[in-house]
Amino acid sequence: MENLQDIAHQVYQRTGVMTSSKDVEKILSAVAATPHFWEIITLSQRPFSVVAEMIELLRQKNLVTIEKNGDIKFNSKGLEYLNSLKIVPKRVYTCPACEGRGINLSKLEDLIKKFDQVTVNRPKAISDYDQGFVTTQTVVSRIVLMAERGDLEGKKLLVLGDDDLVSIAAGLSGMPTEIVVMEIDDRIVEYINEVANKYNLPIKAMKYDFRDKLPDEYVGYFDTFITDPPETIEALEICIGRGISALSQEGCAGYFGLTLIEASLGKWNIFQQILASKFKVVVTDIIDDFNHYVNWDYLLKSVGKDYAFVQVEPRLNWYRSSMYRIETLIDSKGIENEYKPCELYVDEEALIYKEENK
Amino acid sequence: MENLQDIAHQVYQRTGVMTSSKDVEKILSAVAATPHFWEIITLSQRPFSVVAEMIELLRQKNLVTIEKNGDIKFNSKGLEYLNSLKIVPKRVYTCPACEGRGINLSKLEDLIKKFDQVTVNRPKAISDYDQGFVTTQTVVSRIVLMAERGDLEGKKLLVLGDDDLVSIAAGLSGMPTEIVVMEIDDRIVEYINEVANKYNLPIKAMKYDFRDKLPDEYVGYFDTFITDPPETIEALEICIGRGISALSQEGCAGYFGLTLIEASLGKWNIFQQILASKFKVVVTDIIDDFNHYVNWDYLLKSVGKDYAFVQVEPRLNWYRSSMYRIETLIDSKGIENEYKPCELYVDEEALIYKEENK
Repeated sequence: MENLQDIAHQVYQRTGVMTSSKDVEKILSAVAATPHFWEIITLSQRPFSVVAEMIELLRQKNLVTIEKNGDIKFNSKGLEYLNSLKIVPKRVYTCPACEGRGINLSKLEDLIKKFDQVTVNRPKAISDYDQGFVTTQTVVSRIVLMAERGDLEGKKLLVLGDDDLVSIAAGLSGMPTEIVVMEIDDRIVEYINEVANKYNLPIKAMKYDFRDKLPDEYVGYFDTFITDPPETIEALEICIGRGISALSQEGCAGYFGLTLIEASLGKWNIFQQILASKFKVVVTDIIDDFNHYVNWDYLLKSVGKDYAFVQVEPRLNWYRSSMYRIETLIDSKGIENEYKPCELYVDEEALIYKEENK
Repeated sequence: MENLQDIAHQVYQRTGVMTSSKDVEKILSAVAATPHFWEIITLSQRPFSVVAEMIELLRQKNLVTIEKNGDIKFNSKGLEYLNSLKIVPKRVYTCPACEGRGINLSKLEDLIKKFDQVTVNRPKAISDYDQGFVTTQTVVSRIVLMAERGDLEGKKLLVLGDDDLVSIAAGLSGMPTEIVVMEIDDRIVEYINEVANKYNLPIKAMKYDFRDKLPDEYVGYFDTFITDPPETIEALEICIGRGISALSQEGCAGYFGLTLIEASLGKWNIFQQILASKFKVVVTDIIDDFNHYVNWDYLLKSVGKDYAFVQVEPRLNWYRSSMYRIETLIDSKGIENEYKPCELYVDEEALIYKEENK
């Protein structure tokens, strides 16, 4: 029967994303653990397009059957194949108390409640800016993480893009002295300013597209930044580079999410080279599955595949990302403060299909 | 009163380790949270020598008082100083269920018990090789982490240096098909082989100094390696380089601990450059405080400072490290398979004072 290397090569030909036999193994192990496409993505931690094309390949080779409800199941030939490769269902040992983040939220229950109350009428996620916001548990865990590392209390915080409303949670925590939100979506800028006014929070939100230069007064101004960047290499470099340029000195910190759903390990490596060698910052933490996103309405309409097993409503908050924390050193530097055109959302690893990608 | 930048500069002059005003802030925040030197190290996550010299400086400037039992306390002048800087005691929000690792060990209780029974007569940690082994919770968490990522079950595992006895825990788990231990200490080689024989575990331990070339048959042989390297840059590069050379293909994984106690953030950055650009591997996880070490007997005799506040028995498992996981890509490569002389243990960030360091 088909060997792993051949499958990896066929997946590569279909997607343009480098795929190894170990990647194939990890996806097989995830399919053995759950029949639900979106959970397979979560468990295998491999790019969306790779997982989708590999399952389609398994279907064509008659190793899996797609059921009426979209469930993916190994048939007897498929199970035999798994056995021959000694592949076992993916094991999960996530701490149920903290969802694997390692953070205790029990002291923050008031903040969780308050955040949910205050943001009940938040703007809906829209596709124009690839929006999709994180769960309240995630938002508050971000606040705790920054606080624990000494990056929040008495500090000036920059939130670069904020459909997650981290600024509001940070404001409600009472810890930062000043919070600035730079955000491209007018609805969100307006919403955050309204909430800040109503609850007297030290937040100022303004319209900003991170391809534009930073307002001069904010270069070298902040102690900490947090962002959730789009995941093309160009967008990562510019977005995180802007964040670093906004920090005031060595020992400042940046926080951002990065997925393995829209970014391959090869992309992670290139980006880590940029962080270590070009920006000269140090990565102090990479926390797996830290950020859990609430499912957004436009997913099935805009996702780049129409396979029956893909076109099913997610049964879990499947879209997750790792949380990076970086810290600046004495010779860290961001990017030049000038306009930088770049492709934000679309490359071969992207989840969302855009017209201009035809 | 003294500003943070001046203190940072004086600490740098005393230690040779780059120190920023944010570092000083983090240490002050840790001292505000606990009077115990070893806990201050754990909370501040800054190099041992930096923390020790900074506290000595605070004492000389009459900001802290050292009590009879070695406890370090801000006096009224010190508290005033903290207030003027708006520095608050370090906050801790570690999940109590998983000690912050994010891993649920409840399915592994049998393995925990078995490991403790089997290793009850383990060799003591000795200073010749900077030994100090991790807690049983840590060892089993390592097994779980490797298993969850698909790097253990049905795989060939290399343990490069094993005073932690990870090989025995892995063998008892029944998951790897083959485990090879390369270890410099004859006592440990012998002990592991005895246990492996007695319990019929698929482990082979052999004497090996990682400055020597790898046995040819083990170049490109393993799926996974795990190690706990000494922390000079040279030792890190050679040790992790050997591990990568021992892996068979892309998609293989390496695990190792790295502290902020004996390695500054500057050293982390240099090492991350090596990982990303020279070895072309990707860092997939950096899990803070994952590895907890059992206190070792020779600490106070060999530690490089004789200040009264340092010479106190630790009241907690204070020595901790972050767990790195790396994954290989198609163009990853380790180091040439030849003898590499290097300084293993001693640089200005080292904890242990060796004769040759005079």
